[in-house]
Amino acid sequence: MLKCTRCGREYPLDEPYQRCECGEPLELELFKGLPGIGRRVWERFSQFFPFELDLELSLGEGDTPLTKAKHLSKELGVRLYLKNETLNPTWSFKDRGTFVGIHRALELGFKRIGTVSTGNMAASVAAYGARFGFETFILLPSNIAEEKLKALALYGAKIIKVRGDYGELYYKSLEFGRDRGIYFINSDDPFRVEGYKSISFEIIEDVTPDYVLIPTSSGGLFRGIVKGFLELKESELIEELPKFVVIQAEGCSPICSAFYEERQKIERFENPHTIAHAIENPYPPSGNAVLRLLRKLEGLCVSVDDKEILSAQRALGEEGIFVQPASATSIAALKKLRENGTVEKGAKVVSILTGSGIKTLHQVKAPNVEDGELSE
Amino acid sequence: MLKCTRCGREYPLDEPYQRCECGEPLELELFKGLPGIGRRVWERFSQFFPFELDLELSLGEGDTPLTKAKHLSKELGVRLYLKNETLNPTWSFKDRGTFVGIHRALELGFKRIGTVSTGNMAASVAAYGARFGFETFILLPSNIAEEKLKALALYGAKIIKVRGDYGELYYKSLEFGRDRGIYFINSDDPFRVEGYKSISFEIIEDVTPDYVLIPTSSGGLFRGIVKGFLELKESELIEELPKFVVIQAEGCSPICSAFYEERQKIERFENPHTIAHAIENPYPPSGNAVLRLLRKLEGLCVSVDDKEILSAQRALGEEGIFVQPASATSIAALKKLRENGTVEKGAKVVSILTGSGIKTLHQVKAPNVEDGELSE
Repeated sequence: MLKCTRCGREYPLDEPYQRCECGEPLELELFKGLPGIGRRVWERFSQFFPFELDLELSLGEGDTPLTKAKHLSKELGVRLYLKNETLNPTWSFKDRGTFVGIHRALELGFKRIGTVSTGNMAASVAAYGARFGFETFILLPSNIAEEKLKALALYGAKIIKVRGDYGELYYKSLEFGRDRGIYFINSDDPFRVEGYKSISFEIIEDVTPDYVLIPTSSGGLFRGIVKGFLELKESELIEELPKFVVIQAEGCSPICSAFYEERQKIERFENPHTIAHAIENPYPPSGNAVLRLLRKLEGLCVSVDDKEILSAQRALGEEGIFVQPASATSIAALKKLRENGTVEKGAKVVSILTGSGIKTLHQVKAPNVEDGELSE
Repeated sequence: MLKCTRCGREYPLDEPYQRCECGEPLELELFKGLPGIGRRVWERFSQFFPFELDLELSLGEGDTPLTKAKHLSKELGVRLYLKNETLNPTWSFKDRGTFVGIHRALELGFKRIGTVSTGNMAASVAAYGARFGFETFILLPSNIAEEKLKALALYGAKIIKVRGDYGELYYKSLEFGRDRGIYFINSDDPFRVEGYKSISFEIIEDVTPDYVLIPTSSGGLFRGIVKGFLELKESELIEELPKFVVIQAEGCSPICSAFYEERQKIERFENPHTIAHAIENPYPPSGNAVLRLLRKLEGLCVSVDDKEILSAQRALGEEGIFVQPASATSIAALKKLRENGTVEKGAKVVSILTGSGIKTLHQVKAPNVEDGELSE
């Protein structure tokens, strides 16, 4: 049964429902279970997923390293752990959600999938579409950079640039999919959210965090991670929930704005502008759902500016991890939270590093280079 | 004890010896042991490594997926497994060797490391140098592309472009390092080779291959994988060795040329030219050592042209894996080996996918794109 995250209205599982009539996203119930033995998170936590996952078709998503930050832990006076999602098959966390989402499409008998994305998710859905032998449709805004198109080229998906409002494209794509028999695994699809839960399961195998910092765009990742921890608590595998922190860019912070203005609903963020393009969603489809979770669980919302983001990106480079600007936001936020005393000294903090910096090279300044002669 | 791969001369371990006076590379003896329990290959096979590895400083290298190729297995009539090394911390296999190599530098008391590279290895050494808090020197040829410089920028290494013959730079760097107290972890450093062994250990946990296909440049990766299998055999963990296949690009195939011309030594390959830049080494420092192994173990050497490489890269994209051209060479070679009957139907074949395609986007053609209106 799928249930509305706002009004609780229920929808049966045999139809491809994704959003409630009230406009808000649907979600599966909380799963309870016990972890088992296995090399893959999908195996160890199989009781927590809605169906059996075909690991023969997996590309090795998940089971990413949780790396203790060496320099930053010392500098910030915390125990900082970096969940390195850049080591997924298409080098971002999206693969976890796509893997579960495409099983949903399979279960419903679809042979065609799609997504609306400007980057990470497009590559992920194109890759899994190819892997599963689906016909794959990627809808992109018309101003997409050539670099991002090239990153998709090898997977053989059908790529369509769409003129018009990008935010609206999310909703239009669901209609388009219904008409054409395409299951759109968009950013906060209920089954994509199920895939993101696996991050929480892996974290808890290594550390019981006091804080989890989550760069937030559509809200799908945040919802998934929170749901994972709620299920761990329901299953009595953890005693307390960590504090969840939504991180946004100042140049596009519709959730933080609504949170601090104590509104019930997000508003479209006008003229978004940030270097953290992967989280530059002015009207996140799960924005209200994230707001509700933040209120209920007493979470936090922090926004950071581009200068802070770039400085945090460099700091992560010094840990040996090259992330895209969106992924560095949480380190920038952690600095703020330490400075204003919100996060206490010695706290155990997990930061989700969402995607690889190698995907956004155009945003990197070339380094200083010395010249030399071989004979010298 | 380090031993010359050719003349057998021995060198003590308390000095940073890397090559024999006779000019050939040194190597550690074969390790014997039993695998244990652990989440990391470094733990499970700890008896096979020359020293204890500090996993607190690991970036999560190794333990990459071995993905069964779905479409290609069917098309080629074999059981093809793809060892996806693009999911290492800097998105290539180099990280395994760098991780072990930097421990060697640490053991010898160095505080400075370096490498000579045009791409994958530079990023890897820069990342681990940062992680371990070393001063890091990256020597590059003067015609290096800006894209490759940017991939290094965030790790904060000292980058030096050197004019002059690139092949010679390998040897010059070792001298330079001796003078300046910099341990150069170059392509076939004996301890880098120890790191690459871990690939063999992971393969054998999943499958006992009939063939292992290895894109080969300097020869360090090939030597490491072969050494791993030899140790597994010595330890009676496998009964038979697989057939090892060196893959090169036709436009730069110094090892294959020497092999088929039955020479004892490789010759410098004049005017190398291939799209597979990561294996475009005209005078590989472990070339002769690889030749010796091929002869002793009755291995094979196959070279493929750029057209075949690009076609294989697309075929891997359809499996959902986006590799750089050098990594696609082994699939191109497998097609040839199946066509000429060398590899039998139903054989179990492992292909090493060395590095991510996202690093070489400039070599990718933009895909076809359709245009649409939101209202449609």
